[in-house]
Amino acid sequence: MSADGSQKLLRIDLTSRSASEESIPREIMARYIGGAGLGVKYVFDEVPPETDPLSVENKLILACGPFTGTSIPCSSRMAVVAKSPLTGGMALGLTGGHFPSELAHAGYIAIIVQGKAEQPTFVAITGESVRFHDAAHVWGTRTSDCQQIIKDRLNNQNYRVACIGPAGEKLSRMACIINERRAAGRKGFGAIMGSKNLKAIAVLGTESVGIADDESFRQQRKQMGRWMKESPVLYPFFAKYGTSRGIDGHGARGYFPARNFQDTGEFVPIETLGSEARQAQTIGHASCAECPVGCGQLMLARTGRHAGILTEGPEYETIYSFGGQTGVADLDSVIAADRLSDEFGLDTMSAGVSIGFAMELFERGLLSSEDVDGLDLSFGNHESMLTLLEKIAMREGFGDVLADGVRVAAARLGKDTEYYAMHVKGLELPAYDPRGAMAQGMNLATAFTGADHNRGYAIQEIFGVPVPFEADRFSTERKGELTKWNQDVRTAVCDCPTLCAFVFDTALAAHALEHTAAVMNAVTGIELTPEEVQRVGERINNLARVFNVRAGFSRADDTLPTRVLTEPLKAGASKGHVVGVDEFNAMLDEYYLARGWDLATGVPSREKLAELGLEEALE
Amino acid sequence: MSADGSQKLLRIDLTSRSASEESIPREIMARYIGGAGLGVKYVFDEVPPETDPLSVENKLILACGPFTGTSIPCSSRMAVVAKSPLTGGMALGLTGGHFPSELAHAGYIAIIVQGKAEQPTFVAITGESVRFHDAAHVWGTRTSDCQQIIKDRLNNQNYRVACIGPAGEKLSRMACIINERRAAGRKGFGAIMGSKNLKAIAVLGTESVGIADDESFRQQRKQMGRWMKESPVLYPFFAKYGTSRGIDGHGARGYFPARNFQDTGEFVPIETLGSEARQAQTIGHASCAECPVGCGQLMLARTGRHAGILTEGPEYETIYSFGGQTGVADLDSVIAADRLSDEFGLDTMSAGVSIGFAMELFERGLLSSEDVDGLDLSFGNHESMLTLLEKIAMREGFGDVLADGVRVAAARLGKDTEYYAMHVKGLELPAYDPRGAMAQGMNLATAFTGADHNRGYAIQEIFGVPVPFEADRFSTERKGELTKWNQDVRTAVCDCPTLCAFVFDTALAAHALEHTAAVMNAVTGIELTPEEVQRVGERINNLARVFNVRAGFSRADDTLPTRVLTEPLKAGASKGHVVGVDEFNAMLDEYYLARGWDLATGVPSREKLAELGLEEALE
Repeated sequence: MSADGSQKLLRIDLTSRSASEESIPREIMARYIGGAGLGVKYVFDEVPPETDPLSVENKLILACGPFTGTSIPCSSRMAVVAKSPLTGGMALGLTGGHFPSELAHAGYIAIIVQGKAEQPTFVAITGESVRFHDAAHVWGTRTSDCQQIIKDRLNNQNYRVACIGPAGEKLSRMACIINERRAAGRKGFGAIMGSKNLKAIAVLGTESVGIADDESFRQQRKQMGRWMKESPVLYPFFAKYGTSRGIDGHGARGYFPARNFQDTGEFVPIETLGSEARQAQTIGHASCAECPVGCGQLMLARTGRHAGILTEGPEYETIYSFGGQTGVADLDSVIAADRLSDEFGLDTMSAGVSIGFAMELFERGLLSSEDVDGLDLSFGNHESMLTLLEKIAMREGFGDVLADGVRVAAARLGKDTEYYAMHVKGLELPAYDPRGAMAQGMNLATAFTGADHNRGYAIQEIFGVPVPFEADRFSTERKGELTKWNQDVRTAVCDCPTLCAFVFDTALAAHALEHTAAVMNAVTGIELTPEEVQRVGERINNLARVFNVRAGFSRADDTLPTRVLTEPLKAGASKGHVVGVDEFNAMLDEYYLARGWDLATGVPSREKLAELGLEEALE
Repeated sequence: MSADGSQKLLRIDLTSRSASEESIPREIMARYIGGAGLGVKYVFDEVPPETDPLSVENKLILACGPFTGTSIPCSSRMAVVAKSPLTGGMALGLTGGHFPSELAHAGYIAIIVQGKAEQPTFVAITGESVRFHDAAHVWGTRTSDCQQIIKDRLNNQNYRVACIGPAGEKLSRMACIINERRAAGRKGFGAIMGSKNLKAIAVLGTESVGIADDESFRQQRKQMGRWMKESPVLYPFFAKYGTSRGIDGHGARGYFPARNFQDTGEFVPIETLGSEARQAQTIGHASCAECPVGCGQLMLARTGRHAGILTEGPEYETIYSFGGQTGVADLDSVIAADRLSDEFGLDTMSAGVSIGFAMELFERGLLSSEDVDGLDLSFGNHESMLTLLEKIAMREGFGDVLADGVRVAAARLGKDTEYYAMHVKGLELPAYDPRGAMAQGMNLATAFTGADHNRGYAIQEIFGVPVPFEADRFSTERKGELTKWNQDVRTAVCDCPTLCAFVFDTALAAHALEHTAAVMNAVTGIELTPEEVQRVGERINNLARVFNVRAGFSRADDTLPTRVLTEPLKAGASKGHVVGVDEFNAMLDEYYLARGWDLATGVPSREKLAELGLEEALE
């Protein structure tokens, strides 16, 4: 950061093998804060909405926030933004680990990657130089090997490397970017890197991040530490169990989805995949930079051919996708699938849901054994799950049919298979059955990234956090308003500064807007009111919405799979509940009203855009 | 190194969790040079020959030489010495990579590890401190994960880590120590670490190694560089193909052993495993520290469930063990087996030979399908090979029978299975069928470490290097004398200073004694004549011999498997050749005479020991 509050951006052009620095003016920082805000802004400005996401015209933006690289706890987070190969709309993903901090220490708040390399390439960035290296010697490698070989090649083990695996090279629209053992997991960012012949970005930072007001910064950091310590959840549960605690609570409350959403509430493998069962195989914990919590669980498979396989995770969402969706109650298999996905650079969530989708089609006779290369795709067959996962990553046989997610697979397979494709806007559903959590479902239906739990997570329904008001998870009341609040505030206080959402969910929620404003001021000298912070979130969600509208999205895309709208749950603590078509439409109307969007089309009104100062979106 | 030519040794006591520095006097350095010499000397002095190798009384010595850490090419090598759990005699192994240099840069020429930790432990060494860390969070992990997690835990990616995998923890007598992607592979060092609850040693060095005479050092280094460039083999073949070139030449000359030494000369899978076939899957090269050659081949499996698996190797010996011995001509399977062995921390050679042994027993009906957990152990079954490998590493089912090598397995199985157990002194044979290379065979029969190609490799027979004289590989003439020379010189010029044997084999052989003396003098100020250098090698081989005699070895142990003594080869360029019992005994007599050892017992004479100044061995 410069003394005037501006920030430095690095633009990397793969076509010309050149790099240049640009200044992000203070005014843009004030309007977008950083991270997701910067990413959405730059994609909006530079990527035409009709762009083929895997063409040379798409751009990939890695954006930290002004907090990243400082000692604010849990700030080593980075937004990844582009046009999504999976949804066709604005994509936003987040990753942690050490890469974000390292990038900030190299002096850059963000990187824009554009163009396409002629040959497989990796880029090495320091504060002093940007170098383009031939990546032939790592092309085809799995992600952990790739990172190590690149450090060896650069003769410096301190680089942090973000890379793709074979799945990204093969342009799987479910491919992710892996840095260390973390992923910018969803929406196909890995395929974008693959399409650009970009195997990896290595970064080495040595600068510290400047602070505008040290005294205020120290106070805010201390205050944040107190809130974190006071949280009844953060250290007692997240530090001990990571996100895996979710299966116990969400399973018990009947919205842990199972067997492609057929058996939510019925198949709840807490006994083998629950947080207590996992403790026996948790050998340690892992932290992102600047994180005092360490929610990453290092877990070890113990038996059979998986013995000795380690993974950081599997996170709650992965237990859902490789455990719940496939009906595999075997922890070692889920650990193996998690690691394998990371190694191949494949999104665990989309991959597991896609396998669950294929399993349902197989059991219903819509896929024959011959169709699926002779595999027995019955729910619960863990060997088939792992084999199919490998096939997806390598686009081998039937794996190629699934490699671009359930929407594409259903379109290829025809025969009304779309009914069984559990996605919104092409993004596979996460581990919350909307029939048991209505605002959570509303977010999945309306988030600009598709069925994405990270946009407007309903902490009110899931964690019982009464901010800004309490909510009954089965009720439809005020769920549109709640969803807007959740989306705008989380975007503004987590995805932009950047800050780990778990801290928001479990400790900061009630203080987040004030806190973000105060830290923003302390770090950058930019003054924002809490209302203005929230407004940043709203601005980003509207700008992304306009991008999506121009890319062809309409009200019809803000929906949920027919199954969750119409089939009541058959078992568990949410038994009998269903979203309902009319109920859903009523919630959606209320959401659009709260947003100031047209009820018929879902398009933001000119008044709303003008109010948010989005002149760029008014054209 | 101190100005007086003494060196610093680090003694680590795991029982008391303490460490201390000791000085190795100049006089000891002059008598043993370093590396293997120091290791053998300290084990001789401190480990009673009757010690159970997996008891707390055994010690593990990691010893670099005075060249290590300097800019002498190919000097980042380290000897590992202990009493072997596999042979019961003196064990010596060598590893490369970056760990040896790093240790030298931490200021230590050697480490002695003694005692036993109460709980799984890893040790972190810098020039300033030695710290003992709880290793519960890496116990059970595979070796690449282990190394990464330890670097993360120490919060410094620059540590170099030597560790064991699950096989070492489970005390497999075939378990090795892995640092980076390199192994101190044979004789069960991994089991010794496991028996001491020592998961890993991490080292971080920041000092440079002092040079006594800079000008002379520069000259010697330059001269060595010239010899290396002049070599018709080193850069043209080793740099391009690594050791894999061996299969082409050795296969064509009929001593590439196949299917448990039944089909040497008949099964020669050059088409799929040969150096040219491998080029398509070689994506890059890897070097040890200070190595301008880079013989490490980074190879990538391409198909099926192995797709994307990387390995550094497989080296010639591993192509032999997982390709030749098991009859598996599939490169991807051999790559997968190589990587898996490294991850489990299992010696590829002993493991592959043990699997080949089981395959022969299976095909001969000496093992039933039931005996081997239902596996089809026919030669060539690559899936069974990989499954059995996993079982060996985890001691599961029949894997437990093989986990301690063929000698132990044959003793357990009985039924005259010993005939099919291809080992000497418990160490499985390497990739040279003695029937096609007699001096190579004599070395396998007489090396103090068992059937170890690394003790007195017959460069005359294998590479046609006419030093000290030419040799016909089928002839028995002067093979005893040649074997003594090979063992003594290689020990002195490679294993002690330390220096990569490949450079000796391909470029230095004719100059090695002079070169070693000159560099020794330049680095340490210690003056040795070329004859004295050779005498160091002889001293070490005699000291180790005395240790072995006291441990119970006699002339009867200096032998070769009956099969190679009595069954003529059925095919290939060495067809019809056999070692022959009488011929072998004649060669052994000649060897003992050359050595000054008693013909009946193989015990070194008192005169010889006195002549070598081995007062410590005279008691």
